[in-house]
Amino acid sequence: MELSEAVRRFAESPVAHLASVRADGAPHIVPVVFALDGATIVTVVDEKPKRARNLRRIENVASEPRVSVLVDHYDEDWRRLWWVRADGRGRIVHEGPELDRAIELITARYPQERARPPRGPALLIDVERWRFWAG
Amino acid sequence: MELSEAVRRFAESPVAHLASVRADGAPHIVPVVFALDGATIVTVVDEKPKRARNLRRIENVASEPRVSVLVDHYDEDWRRLWWVRADGRGRIVHEGPELDRAIELITARYPQERARPPRGPALLIDVERWRFWAG
Repeated sequence: MELSEAVRRFAESPVAHLASVRADGAPHIVPVVFALDGATIVTVVDEKPKRARNLRRIENVASEPRVSVLVDHYDEDWRRLWWVRADGRGRIVHEGPELDRAIELITARYPQERARPPRGPALLIDVERWRFWAG
Repeated sequence: MELSEAVRRFAESPVAHLASVRADGAPHIVPVVFALDGATIVTVVDEKPKRARNLRRIENVASEPRVSVLVDHYDEDWRRLWWVRADGRGRIVHEGPELDRAIELITARYPQERARPPRGPALLIDVERWRFWAG
């Protein structure tokens, strides 16, 4: 598998797994829906501002911006296993054109979000390194 | 969803996602095959001793035993989404009856491992907390 193919597979997956680090140093992991926008992984939460600050992944990225995002494929035929991992830095966007664009990308990708688009904030992850493997 | 059902779904998934923390404080994430043995998540790698010590997840658990393991289900119908997360402490077992049992559990669960069982070491995760969510 080449990098371009790995990034394509990552982008086409409807779900990814986001690992971040808590202020106390323990890891945290959560599934996320996302859109890949160039070299940025776009996710949007739907919370009131006060609750958003307390959302674990938002809190984590505020204290430790480094995150790791995984897309993987399981198959009973292990020759067909593969995974693609993006290591990067997260940042929280509470308002402005970057949030508007993030909401637009997510609602364009997921019809499930269209009836009531997420309010934000956006958690944008600037990818610094791709790693991938195929069986 | 109740805890017993959450743990059952976790145990039945053929693959989980393991988040650990690197010595430099950044998160790391990798898919793993596993078996749930009571309150312990059992995984086994297949490496020569020297290479095993340098394997990222092994190195990470040696410096920071806290890990987080996720199983999740994606569905286009978001009412059917669910995830189950186990937070716990990892420990590396290089030899002895715990390694033997781990190899036995993994080869019993995965026919793919039977032709050439993994040598070890085992990464055993003692679960301290279950968290789960269903749409």
